[in-house]
Amino acid sequence: MSRVGIAGFGQTKFSEDDSKIESVLLKTTKNLLDSTSNLSQKDIDAVLVSTNNNSKYLSAILSEMTSIQPKISHSIESLCNSGTNAIVAAYSYIVSGLAEVVLISGAERYDSPGQILEWDNLRGEFKHPIFWASIFSKSYKRKYSISDEDLALVSVKNHKQSIHNPFAISQKAVSIDDVLNSKKLTEDLRLLECSRPCTGGASILLASENSCNTFTDNPVWITGIGQKTTSASFTKIPSFDTMESTRQAAHSAFQMSKQKPTDIDVMEIHDAFAVCEPMALDSMGFSTSGKGIELVKEAYFSENYKISPRGGLIGSGHPLGATGIAQTIEITQQLQSQAEKRQVDNAKVGLVHNMSAASTSSTVLVLEK
Amino acid sequence: MSRVGIAGFGQTKFSEDDSKIESVLLKTTKNLLDSTSNLSQKDIDAVLVSTNNNSKYLSAILSEMTSIQPKISHSIESLCNSGTNAIVAAYSYIVSGLAEVVLISGAERYDSPGQILEWDNLRGEFKHPIFWASIFSKSYKRKYSISDEDLALVSVKNHKQSIHNPFAISQKAVSIDDVLNSKKLTEDLRLLECSRPCTGGASILLASENSCNTFTDNPVWITGIGQKTTSASFTKIPSFDTMESTRQAAHSAFQMSKQKPTDIDVMEIHDAFAVCEPMALDSMGFSTSGKGIELVKEAYFSENYKISPRGGLIGSGHPLGATGIAQTIEITQQLQSQAEKRQVDNAKVGLVHNMSAASTSSTVLVLEK
Repeated sequence: MSRVGIAGFGQTKFSEDDSKIESVLLKTTKNLLDSTSNLSQKDIDAVLVSTNNNSKYLSAILSEMTSIQPKISHSIESLCNSGTNAIVAAYSYIVSGLAEVVLISGAERYDSPGQILEWDNLRGEFKHPIFWASIFSKSYKRKYSISDEDLALVSVKNHKQSIHNPFAISQKAVSIDDVLNSKKLTEDLRLLECSRPCTGGASILLASENSCNTFTDNPVWITGIGQKTTSASFTKIPSFDTMESTRQAAHSAFQMSKQKPTDIDVMEIHDAFAVCEPMALDSMGFSTSGKGIELVKEAYFSENYKISPRGGLIGSGHPLGATGIAQTIEITQQLQSQAEKRQVDNAKVGLVHNMSAASTSSTVLVLEK
Repeated sequence: MSRVGIAGFGQTKFSEDDSKIESVLLKTTKNLLDSTSNLSQKDIDAVLVSTNNNSKYLSAILSEMTSIQPKISHSIESLCNSGTNAIVAAYSYIVSGLAEVVLISGAERYDSPGQILEWDNLRGEFKHPIFWASIFSKSYKRKYSISDEDLALVSVKNHKQSIHNPFAISQKAVSIDDVLNSKKLTEDLRLLECSRPCTGGASILLASENSCNTFTDNPVWITGIGQKTTSASFTKIPSFDTMESTRQAAHSAFQMSKQKPTDIDVMEIHDAFAVCEPMALDSMGFSTSGKGIELVKEAYFSENYKISPRGGLIGSGHPLGATGIAQTIEITQQLQSQAEKRQVDNAKVGLVHNMSAASTSSTVLVLEK
């Protein structure tokens, strides 16, 4: 079976600006087209748009704006892990032989309708993600005796790392005190423990093995894919201190790639909220239960960018449909040794963790150079 | 390579009712689950929702409501051909080995936001599809000297045929005079020449060859797939009397299936408006240019259900995200010899034509028993 590789990418700076969704899609896609050698519009067999935006027919609109006439063209939505869902769909189109080269463009505006969990009415008025994040934080800290200071370190580390990510919304370091003194959104959650809604786009080009080598001499391959959806509702997840869908997705991705947690040199974690980072590390087998925070500490104090080098969602911002794609671009750059000040030494195998709505759905990808 | 087959299906009656989108999805999916032998929820690896509805995370919501915990789960939107786009995505997931069994559920409400072409601002206030349909009608009739009476026959035939489709919104025959005397929406388009927005759902189960044989002893196989998007805007299409994306999609689907127009025993055509039926027949090579209307006449006067046996979009109604799936179900039933009063004799090879927005995007599928 032909491998599927990453042949190019483009991004926009994540920001609070009021651009229309079409403008964000156009800008990120233009960045990809301009930076990918030997690529012309006629090479592109499929255009997939990843977004929660309510506009319809965006893949055809993006195609028209960029002079692409694709065979396959549609939008994909799965809340916060729309981006990796679109990457997996593109992978399938290529392996199945329906496409050779697929463009995936993700974009979101700061006011995305995907930010409110309208359907999860069991929780009454508590439809904003901060409410599940708050319960996760309380439960995880209590069960594993984790201090507020230790959990704050996730935000401190990710803000520090995003300073070296030119596309990140945050370019400013924060201290543990800054985090602890930031506005309390609930009894258990502070503003600086949250990722920020923002406007941003990220595009990636996937290609079959043959085509990939035409467009890049530094390809990165998708070798592991794992996905799982356990429910739509926070109230139906089996535990508030572990991520079951993430556990199953990671298991599948490791199995497919024949890799294991100790093989991973660099990873992007879906830290929608600070507590998600250690929980995800535990759930994927990087740490035993409750010990994910020790990996965060170790990375921070050794100045090792191994965990979410681009600053995670907390440092980079979280434009829902673009996030999974931006995470995958970061791991690609790491494996290409092109991550500049964020570069992890000798990175050969990387992982992306992207999830939705209180980890009711997760995607895990393994990438290799 | 393993074949991909249709292992089950379910539908709701297309109507004007005010059900929530989640209710429509649940109802059509329950009909599929109840009618598919040996199928249990744990067999389903992927759940894809096809819709233009603005609600988010519907695939996870549908999964939770039906006790499915899929690996792959997301929504797909491409306006009026969302349904066949989702079927092609499911096909890919199976051929690529990421899934064995995929559930696709399409649903729409009568007030779908996909019915107004908000982005096509070049036309000023003329964003409703009736305006492109009006120009198509004028152009096609003038170029090929087709009378109003002849074009009205598309609607007469499809209304007649939908009487035998228990899921169709229209259960009433109309005459040529009824069509010609129906309300003029524009100078060139009458109400009874239009398909109707409505509320409805359609679900289909795709499976690998091995799995398919577990669920049905009467499988139908997807042997040809063709897709093309030429633009998003009506104003960018090369001609008002032919469908270029349909032409290219049909060419690809025939090539992949090694079939040709004369091999097709039964077909579903995307008659969003009456003129679309002869135009699509011409563009796919069933007729020479301008002669599609002769095939419509022949089918009508010989009482042959070969063209859009379920009554097409004009007779059945057009709940956007469900339409391509309902069309595929009809062809499946025909090839299974289970289409009752709509049955075409000795149907072995069938075709589905599903398109969006003035044929700026088309999907063509070839199915075989």
